[in-house]
Amino acid sequence: MVKVLLCLYDGGKHAQDVPALLGTTENELGIRKWLEDQGHTLVTTSDKEGPNSVFEKELVDAEVIITTPFHPGYLTPERLAKAKNLKIAITAGIGSDHVDLPAANKTNGGITVAEVTGSNVVSVAEHVVMTILVLLRNFVPAHEQVAKGNWDVAAVAKQEYDLEGKVVGTVAVGRIGERVLRRLKPFGCKELLYFDYQPLSADKEAEIGCRRVDSLEEMLAQCDVVTINCPLHEKTQGLFNKELISKMKPGSYLVNTARGAIVVKEDVAAALKSGHLAGYGGDVWFPQPAPADHPLRTAVNPFGFGNAMTPHMSGTSLDAQKRYADGTKAILESYLTGKHDYRPEDLIVYGGDWATKSYGQRDKVNKQ
Amino acid sequence: MVKVLLCLYDGGKHAQDVPALLGTTENELGIRKWLEDQGHTLVTTSDKEGPNSVFEKELVDAEVIITTPFHPGYLTPERLAKAKNLKIAITAGIGSDHVDLPAANKTNGGITVAEVTGSNVVSVAEHVVMTILVLLRNFVPAHEQVAKGNWDVAAVAKQEYDLEGKVVGTVAVGRIGERVLRRLKPFGCKELLYFDYQPLSADKEAEIGCRRVDSLEEMLAQCDVVTINCPLHEKTQGLFNKELISKMKPGSYLVNTARGAIVVKEDVAAALKSGHLAGYGGDVWFPQPAPADHPLRTAVNPFGFGNAMTPHMSGTSLDAQKRYADGTKAILESYLTGKHDYRPEDLIVYGGDWATKSYGQRDKVNKQ
Repeated sequence: MVKVLLCLYDGGKHAQDVPALLGTTENELGIRKWLEDQGHTLVTTSDKEGPNSVFEKELVDAEVIITTPFHPGYLTPERLAKAKNLKIAITAGIGSDHVDLPAANKTNGGITVAEVTGSNVVSVAEHVVMTILVLLRNFVPAHEQVAKGNWDVAAVAKQEYDLEGKVVGTVAVGRIGERVLRRLKPFGCKELLYFDYQPLSADKEAEIGCRRVDSLEEMLAQCDVVTINCPLHEKTQGLFNKELISKMKPGSYLVNTARGAIVVKEDVAAALKSGHLAGYGGDVWFPQPAPADHPLRTAVNPFGFGNAMTPHMSGTSLDAQKRYADGTKAILESYLTGKHDYRPEDLIVYGGDWATKSYGQRDKVNKQ
Repeated sequence: MVKVLLCLYDGGKHAQDVPALLGTTENELGIRKWLEDQGHTLVTTSDKEGPNSVFEKELVDAEVIITTPFHPGYLTPERLAKAKNLKIAITAGIGSDHVDLPAANKTNGGITVAEVTGSNVVSVAEHVVMTILVLLRNFVPAHEQVAKGNWDVAAVAKQEYDLEGKVVGTVAVGRIGERVLRRLKPFGCKELLYFDYQPLSADKEAEIGCRRVDSLEEMLAQCDVVTINCPLHEKTQGLFNKELISKMKPGSYLVNTARGAIVVKEDVAAALKSGHLAGYGGDVWFPQPAPADHPLRTAVNPFGFGNAMTPHMSGTSLDAQKRYADGTKAILESYLTGKHDYRPEDLIVYGGDWATKSYGQRDKVNKQ
């Protein structure tokens, strides 16, 4: 019989209000009864930081650990060394950078790391398009104005633009980046650009109407809007620092729904303050939950505009929660039945080796 | 030599900060020097309400009156009767419902009413798509949460949905409605519906992937999201009242960027309060500017969510301001040179008769 450790965010009264909030400690992805009926044990917690956390105490004899990117139970080399029974770490969602993957490849002869590929790519792509429009059209101060009882169109129209006619570029054109470009196609942008080591096929480029740019800096210099859609790894950590941001077009917008640690938060805040960036938005932070004094909670441009941040929620819409709960259950079933008939695209590391190029085949991942 | 009366919103320091804010009393659509160099007179004001307003006093001898939908100088039958010299009323933007069109047809032998067709259809369509995403993805409370220093994903994910898989319908599929549907196409909605007396061609329907529904009530019953894109006239004024809203799907969303008077504001607020509507958003109000106690400034659903209102700004992005300033100048030039070579699509009433079917051939328009 198997011990499963599940790390989710607390839903509190919201989880009672809305049973479809499956990704909460209360609703437990809907797997408790199903697991217990088979004689397995489920321990669920949101308490994940530090050596005295429930997560750290319970992982010593857990065979399966499940967490989400929204409230990740980090699996550092130190924690992996303690997890003597661990066989599989499942991400209920997409993005397994909370697991030290090189260490996972060496833990207990190589644990499996799997995620529910595709479960929230659409949700995130929608959040990106929303954030681009919210920033360009200056929605936040406009909404705040009417909520406060004021009326001053000029005060918000002074930095309101159309998306039509602008140049938008994505850093990486994987499952999410490509979906962002497809959704932008009918908006009549001046150009849709991408930077990626792996080009789209010529057919796809023609269908979407986008163009690859060889160098990241060259792309950034042309873009009114940049959207980050690459995984976090040693080459992307801290990528958007002061120096790279200085290559961006003055007055441009940056949207990050990938991972918080891909940007240097102080450098983004400074670029907003100077007006070099007109806006920054997205839903990812480092660490998560973001501390109350995280600079990107309140960073704004010289007009007081340009912040479109949310908590990490883009991939946890109620529609996405159903998909990642279903997908997690499928991975669990593959494991518990001993069939190991996983969907190949769900496997990140397997059998002591990388199963995907998105994260792997690198020396060091997740230094932070 | 001609007297031109121009009614715009005040830009204050914002107009100085941003010279591209052309639609302000300070920047005057960029036409003052051009008019004065030809010997004409320009009087500009934002003071438009009541018999002692500058607008009402100056209109008695104005030959040309220009205003915008964002801060409209209303031309009622009483005001038109006073405007003995008036020959042409120009809307710097789209939507001439602030002019009593039947009365205009009888004023001084029939004045010309013209607007800058197309000048902001894209801007408004973008605002619609943004508002749909903001409502479905529950952006407003999520952004407020991080700005306040909190972190509670469940508290906002509890009413966060994807647009993918939802049914969206537009009331009218004119220049804006069609552009909304085209922008929604790649989002993978379950269905895109429209209600309009004039169907799209079969080719366009196939291209967009949308379907006409014969009755408005039948369409509303199927929609997760309804977007209003019809002009205001006697058949649409107060259209979304308690009774019609009750035909909408419980928990659905309503977006109105057309005109405020198309909905009964108290009925919308009540439907939000009961949760029958999950959200309401858009940028149009009646009257404008909205009074500080307008119920739709603060109306929310039982979770405290579902308000995505802004001041009337969708069509007044800086990109749109350039287009409607250019278009207004072109109409003025057609008039002042005596050529009257207007773009046919810009004419609303001309020569004492309706020039468009969008508003006209009705007994009473703009009762309110």
